[in-house]
Amino acid sequence: MRTLILVLLLIPFCLLAQQEPVDQAMMQKIRTEGLEHSQIPVIAHYLTDVNGPRLTNSPGYTHAAKWVVQTLKQWGLQNAAMEPWGQFGKSWSLTGSYLALKTPYYQPLIAYPKAWSTGTKGPITAPVVLLDTLSEAAIDKLGASIKGKIVIVRPRDTALVSNFKPFATRYADTTDFSKLPDMYMLERDDIAKYGDFFQKLYAVRKHLAAKGAAALLNANLHGRDGTIFADGRMYYAKGYTSPLPEVTVSTEDMLRLYRLLRSSQPVQLEMNVKAKWDSTDTKGYNVVGEIPGTDNELKNQVVMLGGHLDSWHSGTGATDDGAGCIVMMEVMRILKTLGVQPKRTIRIALWGGEEQGLLGSFGYVKKHYGNPADMKLTAEQKNVSAYYNLDNGSGKIRGIYLQNNEAAGPIFRSWLEPFADLGATGITSSNTGSTDHLSFDAVGIPGFQFIQDPLEYETKTHHSNMDTYDHLSMDDMKQAATIIAAFVYNTAMRPEMMPRKPLPQPSRFVFDLDFPL
Amino acid sequence: MRTLILVLLLIPFCLLAQQEPVDQAMMQKIRTEGLEHSQIPVIAHYLTDVNGPRLTNSPGYTHAAKWVVQTLKQWGLQNAAMEPWGQFGKSWSLTGSYLALKTPYYQPLIAYPKAWSTGTKGPITAPVVLLDTLSEAAIDKLGASIKGKIVIVRPRDTALVSNFKPFATRYADTTDFSKLPDMYMLERDDIAKYGDFFQKLYAVRKHLAAKGAAALLNANLHGRDGTIFADGRMYYAKGYTSPLPEVTVSTEDMLRLYRLLRSSQPVQLEMNVKAKWDSTDTKGYNVVGEIPGTDNELKNQVVMLGGHLDSWHSGTGATDDGAGCIVMMEVMRILKTLGVQPKRTIRIALWGGEEQGLLGSFGYVKKHYGNPADMKLTAEQKNVSAYYNLDNGSGKIRGIYLQNNEAAGPIFRSWLEPFADLGATGITSSNTGSTDHLSFDAVGIPGFQFIQDPLEYETKTHHSNMDTYDHLSMDDMKQAATIIAAFVYNTAMRPEMMPRKPLPQPSRFVFDLDFPL
Repeated sequence: MRTLILVLLLIPFCLLAQQEPVDQAMMQKIRTEGLEHSQIPVIAHYLTDVNGPRLTNSPGYTHAAKWVVQTLKQWGLQNAAMEPWGQFGKSWSLTGSYLALKTPYYQPLIAYPKAWSTGTKGPITAPVVLLDTLSEAAIDKLGASIKGKIVIVRPRDTALVSNFKPFATRYADTTDFSKLPDMYMLERDDIAKYGDFFQKLYAVRKHLAAKGAAALLNANLHGRDGTIFADGRMYYAKGYTSPLPEVTVSTEDMLRLYRLLRSSQPVQLEMNVKAKWDSTDTKGYNVVGEIPGTDNELKNQVVMLGGHLDSWHSGTGATDDGAGCIVMMEVMRILKTLGVQPKRTIRIALWGGEEQGLLGSFGYVKKHYGNPADMKLTAEQKNVSAYYNLDNGSGKIRGIYLQNNEAAGPIFRSWLEPFADLGATGITSSNTGSTDHLSFDAVGIPGFQFIQDPLEYETKTHHSNMDTYDHLSMDDMKQAATIIAAFVYNTAMRPEMMPRKPLPQPSRFVFDLDFPL
Repeated sequence: MRTLILVLLLIPFCLLAQQEPVDQAMMQKIRTEGLEHSQIPVIAHYLTDVNGPRLTNSPGYTHAAKWVVQTLKQWGLQNAAMEPWGQFGKSWSLTGSYLALKTPYYQPLIAYPKAWSTGTKGPITAPVVLLDTLSEAAIDKLGASIKGKIVIVRPRDTALVSNFKPFATRYADTTDFSKLPDMYMLERDDIAKYGDFFQKLYAVRKHLAAKGAAALLNANLHGRDGTIFADGRMYYAKGYTSPLPEVTVSTEDMLRLYRLLRSSQPVQLEMNVKAKWDSTDTKGYNVVGEIPGTDNELKNQVVMLGGHLDSWHSGTGATDDGAGCIVMMEVMRILKTLGVQPKRTIRIALWGGEEQGLLGSFGYVKKHYGNPADMKLTAEQKNVSAYYNLDNGSGKIRGIYLQNNEAAGPIFRSWLEPFADLGATGITSSNTGSTDHLSFDAVGIPGFQFIQDPLEYETKTHHSNMDTYDHLSMDDMKQAATIIAAFVYNTAMRPEMMPRKPLPQPSRFVFDLDFPL
C-alpha cells in the first residue's frame, strides 16, 4: 500500500521535472552547504541567547534588528537596513519580576508579567481576593475591600491538560498533505467584535485600578509543568495606558491560589514588577537585505523571503519566529556563500509587529505594493515574483501551502523532487493563515508558507516562556534552510515570474486597525 | 491469548479464595466508602495546598504534622501524636528566592534554592563565571577573579530530554507483574563511598566560599519545560554549615548561561535568597495514631500502615509522598467511618526524614523493635503482623511486592480478588527498595510496598517543583485507599499473624549513618 502510494507520487514528479527544469548541480551545492556546513546553531545562539526577547519596538527588538543588519552586511548582502513600516507605539521592557506566596507559607511562584503591563509601586505584600467573574459588577460587589488587594478570577477549568500524550509530534510519512484544512485569518467582522471585546477588557481593568486593586493575576490553562503562556495587552498604542500590573502565573500556582481562597485560607503574596517605558521613537521597523539580481532584464524583479523578527517576551522567541528568521538568514548565507548570481534580486525581510496583527509586513506591502483595502496597486507590485514565509516553529518542511494558487503546484512539485529523501513531498491547495504571507496574498503577490512538522510548537513553545534555544530542532531547521534556498534560487532563475492568481477583491481581511489588537 | 491468560489467572484465585476467607460484605462496604464517599481531594488540599512543603524538621513539616494529629483525633483515632524518632539537625526554611538575568538583558529565571542552602548577603548583582569541572584545582585556576562571582559548571550534557514520549504512563493490563525486577537499597559499601563523595562535595564548596564566590548554581538536566529538580545538601547535620548559596535553575536557563559564557558574552545575574535557621529543637518526628484492637487475645498485636510525611521543598510533596500519606489517612478514615472493630490494633505512622535515608521509620523501628545492625530484637517485634507502605506517587495500585515473602503471596492473591475489576491483580516476589518498608523488613517484620501505575512520578514530579496538588490523580488514590483499607482490615482480622521470612542477617543495608546523607 505504501509502495503503491510512493509510485503514484513519483509519476507526476517524473513528468513535471521535464516541464520545470532544475539546476541539479546547484541543488547539490545548496544541499551540501545547507546540511553539512550549516551555521544554523550559531545564528540561533546569537539571535536568541545573546539578543534575548524581541517584543515589538522594545530595546530587545532594536538590539536584535541591529545585529541582523550587521550580520547580513558581514555576509556581503546589499541594502541591509532597518526600515520603518509605520507607527506602532510606546517601547516597553521588563526590568524586574518577582512573585511569591507569603501566606500561608513562603514559596516563589512561576510568573511572568504580561507585555506592556505597568509595574507595581515598588515591592508590595498584599492579600489575594477571588472574583467570580471579571466584571465591573463583581468588582463593585467586593466594595472597598478590594483596595490594595491582588485579584484573581475563578478559573474556567480546574484540571490540568493531560500528560499522557507526547508534547512533540511529527507528521507520519504517509500523511496525505493535499487534505490539510484551510485556515483563514479573522475577517473584518470578527476583528470588529474583538475590538468591542478589547474595549470591555480595558474598561474593567481601569475599573479595577480605580477601585485601588494592586494587581491582576491570570493563568493560561494550556500551560503546565512550569510552562506559562504570557501574552500581552495593547497598552503600547497611543491613547492607552496600562491600568494596573497584570501578571500571568503558572496553572498550578493559579489553581492553588484559587483552592486556598475557596477554602477560606488567608493568602498573601509578595510582588515586585518593574517596567520601563520610552516614547522617543514610536515607529515600528522591519529588517531588509538583498543579493542584487544580475540579469539586466530581470534584476528589477524580486524574490522575497522572510519570517517575523518580533517575538513575545517571556522566552527568547526561538520558535516563534526565531526559527523562521534563523532559517531565512541561513538561506541568504548559503546563497551568498555559494556565490550565486541570481537573475532576479533576492530580498530577505524580517518583520516587526507580527504578533500585534501582521503589522510590519502589512506596512511594508502597503508602502511598496498597495493597500488591500482599496486595491490601488503600485508599479512595483508587478515585480515581486513570490514571497516565501516560515513561521510554524522549527519543524522540518513537509511541503507547501499553495494558497489556492494552483498553477504554482507543478512548479513546486518539481522543486521539491530533489529533496524527496528529506521528507518534503507535500503540496496542498489549502490556505494557511495567521502569518505574514497573507499581507502579500492580499495585494495579489504570490505569498507562500511551508508545511512543517509540528514538534512541540502548538503544545509548548508558541507564545510561552519555553520558547527558547533549547526547544529548537537544529537538524529540522537545516533541512528547511536547504529546501528554501533551493526554492528561492529557482524562483530567482526561472525565465518567468511565478504564476499569479486573479487579483483579489479589496480584502475582507483586516490589516489597518483603528484600535490596537 | 489474553483470554487464556485471564483464565489461568482466575484458577489460582478460585482455589485460594477457599484457603483465605474474605469478609465479602465488609469488602463491599469498604469499596463503597472508598470509591463513593472519598475524602481524598479534601485531605490532599489541606496536606499540600494549605500546609505547603514539608522538608524534614522545617516549620512546614511541624505545621503539617500537627494538622495530621489534629485530623486523626477529629476522626476519633486513639494515641494520635507526634513521636520523636531521634536527632535530625537544624530546622531550615526558605523566606526569599529571586534569580534573574540582568546582562545581556533582563529576564527572570526559573530557580529554586537547594534545601539547607544559606542565603545571599542581601540582594546582589554579580557576574557569572564558568568552571570546567567543580574541583579545587579548577577553582584555583580562576584565582582571585572568582571573588564576588556566581559560579556555574559546564553541564555534562547540553541537550534536553526528548519531548516525543508522554511524561505520564500506565502499566498495560497485560503486564506480567511477576517479572518486575528486584530493586535494592544501597549497601553499606556503596554508602561509605557516598560518604567520601559528600566530604569532597562539602570541601569543594567550602573552598569556593573561601575564595569569595557569591553563589553556586546547578541544574538537573532531567528537568525541562520549567520543571526543576532541586534537592538539598545535608547542612542540617551537626557540625556542618552551608558554605555559600546553592540554587538549582531550569535546564533551559542553565544551558543558556553556559552558551553565553562559552561565546564570551558578559553575563550578570540579580539574586536574592533568604533562609531561616533554627536550632531550638533538632529532633525529628513521626506522626502516629491508632484504631485500637478489640480482641483480648490479639489487641496487643499491630497492623501498621504508612508513608512518609516529609517532602522536598520546591513543590508541596504531593506525590512524594503526600499521596502515600493522603491514601493512608483515608484508609484510617474509611475504617473509622465504617466503625470496624478490628481484632488487632491498626496503627498509621507517617514518617519524617525519609528523604535523608529512611531516618524516621528506622528510628521508630530501632526504638520499638530492634536494631538491624546487631539484630537484638524487642518483645514488641513479635507483635507486628505487617507494615504496608505507599510511596511511588499517586498512581493506582496494580498489585504488591512480596519482598521474597513467598508465603504471603496466596493470602494477598485472595485479598486482591474482590478488586480485580479495579486493575489490581499483580503479585511479584521481587523486592522494591528506597522506602520505609525496608526499615521493617530489616528486623524481620513483614514490610510491603504496593505496585503502582507510574503516571508521571519518575519523569515529572519526584523531587521537583511540580510535585503539587494538580499532579495528583484523585481517582487513582481512591482506588489505592480502597484496596489498602481491605488489606489492613484483613490483616487485622485473620486468625494468624502474617507469615514471616526467616530472620535476616544483621543488615548489610545502612540506616545508622555517622555522616549526613
